[in-house]
Amino acid sequence: MTADAKTDGRFYFEDVQVGVVQHYGRYEVTREEVMEFAGKYDPQPFHLDDEAAAQTHFGKLSASGWHTAAMVMRMMVDNFQAIKQAGLGSPGVDKLEWPRPVFPGDILRCEAITKSKRRSKSRPEMGLLDGEVKAFNQNDECVLIMESVGLIEVRDPSAPIED
Amino acid sequence: MTADAKTDGRFYFEDVQVGVVQHYGRYEVTREEVMEFAGKYDPQPFHLDDEAAAQTHFGKLSASGWHTAAMVMRMMVDNFQAIKQAGLGSPGVDKLEWPRPVFPGDILRCEAITKSKRRSKSRPEMGLLDGEVKAFNQNDECVLIMESVGLIEVRDPSAPIED
Repeated sequence: MTADAKTDGRFYFEDVQVGVVQHYGRYEVTREEVMEFAGKYDPQPFHLDDEAAAQTHFGKLSASGWHTAAMVMRMMVDNFQAIKQAGLGSPGVDKLEWPRPVFPGDILRCEAITKSKRRSKSRPEMGLLDGEVKAFNQNDECVLIMESVGLIEVRDPSAPIED
Repeated sequence: MTADAKTDGRFYFEDVQVGVVQHYGRYEVTREEVMEFAGKYDPQPFHLDDEAAAQTHFGKLSASGWHTAAMVMRMMVDNFQAIKQAGLGSPGVDKLEWPRPVFPGDILRCEAITKSKRRSKSRPEMGLLDGEVKAFNQNDECVLIMESVGLIEVRDPSAPIED
């Protein structure tokens, strides 16, 4: 460790363990919230109206996929903040899938894994994490899969970058 | 056209033009909505607090990327409904990028293109569209790029499937 290394107790690039599954989050999906989100951002009838939803292959009122993504983000942020992760956001998502619908009354949780990590060559104070987050309902059915790159601070930017 | 072809005036698979850019949407981003969304789904300080945001590389309060995606979805749904598109939802997103942040006061719009389309071989009543949507702010700076597969009804399911 060099003299530049941060010692503030936060969770840095160096602390990230590759290949370890993290379990976190609990989100109760309410009918009110499903309809409020859909009314603002995804006003398709099968997210807003029981009769219209009964005509679709989902069979009943379901949450917007973007609402599911937002609920998962909330669980991710709560987890980052709980472990004091020195995150720097994300430039984007490589894959986002909704294998099953989310229904009012569902209780969601997350499983996350960092598949690989690397230092930025152009910005030595920054690391990149290739991560996958999956969300499950109370029946352990997967409702969302997201692969994304996360940016995170490096504790010790003066340490050499390994290839 | 066979006797099975639907004649209800909706916009079907057969109507989709590949390679034509569609322009649609106008979304005024308000500070209240940015903070309300972030408070519920992405409570990171740079989406909620001016001073915290000033410390980041964005420099000022910005919208959650998931809020940007939700605002774009609203513009997409309004467009689908305006043209009466016989859409069947989407199984997922292949790419989602946020090249620039969205700030309160921005006015967003969309450009969308169908890059290719094909009939489903297993479900002849359904077609698949490979689409790209980009959202821009009032300075024509791109703030979101999304590539996704959209499902859409086929007007004439009895018509042969071309390879």
